[in-house]
Amino acid sequence: MKNLLDHIVNPKDLRKLNQDQLPQLAKELRDFIIDIVATKEGHLGASLGVVELTIALHYLFDTPNDLLVWDVGHQAYGHKILTGRKDVFHTNRQLRGIAGFPSRKESEYDAFGVGHSSTSISAALGMAIASNIKGETEKHHIAVIGDASIASGMAFEALNHAGVSKANLLIILNDNAIGIDPAVGALKEYLTKVKTDKRLAAQNNIIKALNFDYSGPIDGHDLPKVLAELERLKTVKGPKFLHVITTKGKGLQQAEEDQVTYHAPGKFDKISGERLKIAKSLYTKYQDVFGKTVVELADKNDKIVGITPAMLTGGSLKFMLEKHPKRTFDVGIAEQHAVTLAAGMATQGLIPFCNIYSTFLQRAYDQVIHDVALQNLPVVFCLDRAGLVGEDGATHHGVFDLAYLRLIPNLIVFAPRNEIELRNILYTAQLGLKKPIAIRYPRGTGTIIDWKKPFEEIAIGKGVCLQEGNKTAILSIGTIAKNVSEALELVDNASNFSHYDMRFVKPLDENLLHTIFDKHQTIITIEDGTIKGGFGSAILEFTSENNYHQKIKTLGIPDNFIEHGNVLKLQQTLGLNAEKLASTFNVFT
Amino acid sequence: MKNLLDHIVNPKDLRKLNQDQLPQLAKELRDFIIDIVATKEGHLGASLGVVELTIALHYLFDTPNDLLVWDVGHQAYGHKILTGRKDVFHTNRQLRGIAGFPSRKESEYDAFGVGHSSTSISAALGMAIASNIKGETEKHHIAVIGDASIASGMAFEALNHAGVSKANLLIILNDNAIGIDPAVGALKEYLTKVKTDKRLAAQNNIIKALNFDYSGPIDGHDLPKVLAELERLKTVKGPKFLHVITTKGKGLQQAEEDQVTYHAPGKFDKISGERLKIAKSLYTKYQDVFGKTVVELADKNDKIVGITPAMLTGGSLKFMLEKHPKRTFDVGIAEQHAVTLAAGMATQGLIPFCNIYSTFLQRAYDQVIHDVALQNLPVVFCLDRAGLVGEDGATHHGVFDLAYLRLIPNLIVFAPRNEIELRNILYTAQLGLKKPIAIRYPRGTGTIIDWKKPFEEIAIGKGVCLQEGNKTAILSIGTIAKNVSEALELVDNASNFSHYDMRFVKPLDENLLHTIFDKHQTIITIEDGTIKGGFGSAILEFTSENNYHQKIKTLGIPDNFIEHGNVLKLQQTLGLNAEKLASTFNVFT
Repeated sequence: MKNLLDHIVNPKDLRKLNQDQLPQLAKELRDFIIDIVATKEGHLGASLGVVELTIALHYLFDTPNDLLVWDVGHQAYGHKILTGRKDVFHTNRQLRGIAGFPSRKESEYDAFGVGHSSTSISAALGMAIASNIKGETEKHHIAVIGDASIASGMAFEALNHAGVSKANLLIILNDNAIGIDPAVGALKEYLTKVKTDKRLAAQNNIIKALNFDYSGPIDGHDLPKVLAELERLKTVKGPKFLHVITTKGKGLQQAEEDQVTYHAPGKFDKISGERLKIAKSLYTKYQDVFGKTVVELADKNDKIVGITPAMLTGGSLKFMLEKHPKRTFDVGIAEQHAVTLAAGMATQGLIPFCNIYSTFLQRAYDQVIHDVALQNLPVVFCLDRAGLVGEDGATHHGVFDLAYLRLIPNLIVFAPRNEIELRNILYTAQLGLKKPIAIRYPRGTGTIIDWKKPFEEIAIGKGVCLQEGNKTAILSIGTIAKNVSEALELVDNASNFSHYDMRFVKPLDENLLHTIFDKHQTIITIEDGTIKGGFGSAILEFTSENNYHQKIKTLGIPDNFIEHGNVLKLQQTLGLNAEKLASTFNVFT
Repeated sequence: MKNLLDHIVNPKDLRKLNQDQLPQLAKELRDFIIDIVATKEGHLGASLGVVELTIALHYLFDTPNDLLVWDVGHQAYGHKILTGRKDVFHTNRQLRGIAGFPSRKESEYDAFGVGHSSTSISAALGMAIASNIKGETEKHHIAVIGDASIASGMAFEALNHAGVSKANLLIILNDNAIGIDPAVGALKEYLTKVKTDKRLAAQNNIIKALNFDYSGPIDGHDLPKVLAELERLKTVKGPKFLHVITTKGKGLQQAEEDQVTYHAPGKFDKISGERLKIAKSLYTKYQDVFGKTVVELADKNDKIVGITPAMLTGGSLKFMLEKHPKRTFDVGIAEQHAVTLAAGMATQGLIPFCNIYSTFLQRAYDQVIHDVALQNLPVVFCLDRAGLVGEDGATHHGVFDLAYLRLIPNLIVFAPRNEIELRNILYTAQLGLKKPIAIRYPRGTGTIIDWKKPFEEIAIGKGVCLQEGNKTAILSIGTIAKNVSEALELVDNASNFSHYDMRFVKPLDENLLHTIFDKHQTIITIEDGTIKGGFGSAILEFTSENNYHQKIKTLGIPDNFIEHGNVLKLQQTLGLNAEKLASTFNVFT
């Protein structure tokens, strides 16, 4: 009865087991996940919660012919291990290792690439409709979605369509009452009531009202029950919905008890579950510089409100929630609503600090344009995880923001070069700007120990000179300035180079640019965002408008999706680390 | 008892009337709307449907102190007439006239600018929370939203948040079972059941499950009933929801009977309701070139499916619905879902033609990046209403698309210069592209009578030379090529000018560009999209990468929001009509 997992390469092997062996396999799979994540890091809690469900699905359904879509993908470690990736699972999230999320490139078992939440129902419905059109009426299409993800707008749009379709679609709600932070909202309260009062599930049922065959709630850790219910649902045609209750972090006591921390706990002791103490960094994370500065500002300015779409912890708005709970709003995974809510508040004279990961703001692009910028409302967008984010990979890099934001009229676009600049622009933003502003800053820590300096106002649209030289001007935006400074220590002739932090991608500091262009033969722009359409392009536009004819070299993220991996290694690959930059600078002098 | 409306400048005057005078006022208001829209054109049906509701709201609530948000804004003509704009209502949608939608710039009674749907609940909730924070506990905040709009994801996100807020928010569902086309989806079917079976409203209620105080459904044309219910709701604190049944087009027989046509019927006889026959244009609308060509292609290629988010008529996918109903999907106002549904279908080998207005694709930006482009799935985006759209104004111009799309890796971006090019690229797109493509074309008609030519494949990434000259090269993208051609008839020395239709903003035709740059002293780019980050910037990037140093002039939409008005007049204002272009060309030779 031991080492069942050792003999499973893919679901075909799994299906050879007897049903009564599956609880043992669940234990082994759970241990395997814990063993590896304990040392290699990654997303722990979500995958532990769906171990039984994962086994049951691959045991009963004919994957990969039957199509299985994991929402967000935090949940998919067990799935990856059972579908041919057990031996490479230790490379999870590393450069050239397997991805942390399902990926079509990686395996035929990964029916749909995910990363951002709430896409699974739309994708699986599309597959199910395709099967109908192709006459493949026996195929199953399954979306596994969490209770935090299903509250997002696009999931509702998909439910609304699926309910009137004839698609052979099974939606499994993995209800653990938590996303990364505890789930919020009216739907979550409703689901909680359903769990405690089964009559509600029978009578006053949102899912049934949307035309689904609803079953549950059932205990997602009770394998026989899960298997029996899935077996039954295989014979039900049309859109159906199974409500499964699970415990995030199941099987590791600390992970069950502290679900927020153990969503992605870093390294920990696999036996005790204790998180390994790592030497505390001298430096502060940018998200904390943001989170703590906002509290300081909100203490004095009662017009400030904080809004986050489900990233209280990840964005550090939790500090404001602690201090000013009545002015802090976690709206759930609802970026669109978050932005237009902020716009509504701004019409009434409040100053909303809308704290969203750069990559997730893509979800609210229209709201930024149509509800905020068009009405010129002074919303302060605080965009965390801008630039390369590292191990989360292609779905999460915040590399498009400078380009897609700078084309929006009225919007100010700023990227701080360090913690003090971030702090000062947050201060500036609440002094009474008459326009919206987007402030984008990276994941991880800065470089200044003593960043908590007295506030200083930043003049809108003003760049600064960091180093004066006489041949080549390097224009940087954001924290990549650090790489430039380091590179300038390595170049052959430092006195050739000037370095300017332009600070604002919009409005550009045209006076400063005229000075720069008058003085230098060559201009190099650098950003941790896409070269196409980004900061470098803004400089090229200035050049053409003003009839300058210098050589201009634009550096940044090339025109392809960047994989997962350590940020420093990615920068090296892309030629954006200090050494590579120095070589480039030497060439363009 | 006559001419009540004559004496109403704003709601203060309205509130002086006795309640029993209001039905008479409703009749006068309806006649006033019909009178003006009959000759000046505009959105008719939606505003006729809410005449009683509009009067009741301004009669009972203390607008503009109480805050009233009209979703989409199609419904707001009565509101505009009663709030100070009766005398200028005849300038509706004209250049420098009043806007067709509520606008904060225009009136303090327009609490929130709208145009795109489903924003009202988020905005009104933001206002209501702001009032709570400011201690203004007596203030009312009202969102009036249609049944088609409430099915969109962001409206659900807002409901989900509002339901757990303590906000003093009244949501009025204006349920007329239609958006522009008839409403679709499971929620719509549910609402229909509620209307026919009031027990359902009492028992199995989605809105109640989301924690709202639900009342209704009531007849929205029964003024005493509407007034009584609103009066009662004024005293109820917290989030509340009134379900009102109305008839779109109420009071004009044809408009009630043909609600799709009379959404915006053009000119009509105000007595009979008959639409005025206008001389049939010799030319075909681009939307019909798309709609009819897709049918032709789908007849032969059974992998083609059509998807529209609620624009069956507006985008002309209705032709495909007629011919291939099983392969045509109207998913409602759900752009996010539409795009990821298409991605799901594409994984199964289908070729989805996803037909969305350019301005509405902003709603699905993340899905284009994360679900389609990142996975390199061959979805065909058919973007209607690109460029300036005219009278719908700032909320609807499709001027950002070239810029925000071209920064997305893997995506092909094409703009046809005429109907034949549109037809041929649609043909090309279904031959087996291994990548996604965005095809964007304008509102209105083209210029070729006989556009239905045999299909020809377009080489991806190849531009064409339309005129050869020797000094200045004009590079255009899309249908603005016509203005360039006309301008070249007007310039001082035509032989100075070459004209190239670059066709693809991405990938650029680099070979052709090298030829162009080798031969010309000056380059002028022109597009009907934003200059910042757009096609012109792509050319500047090419220039810098390849060390060309010519003078480059980029023409297009400047960096501000463009108001409503006739497209030709707007082009003139922006210097993009033939005459102004000719002057510019003369200068830059």
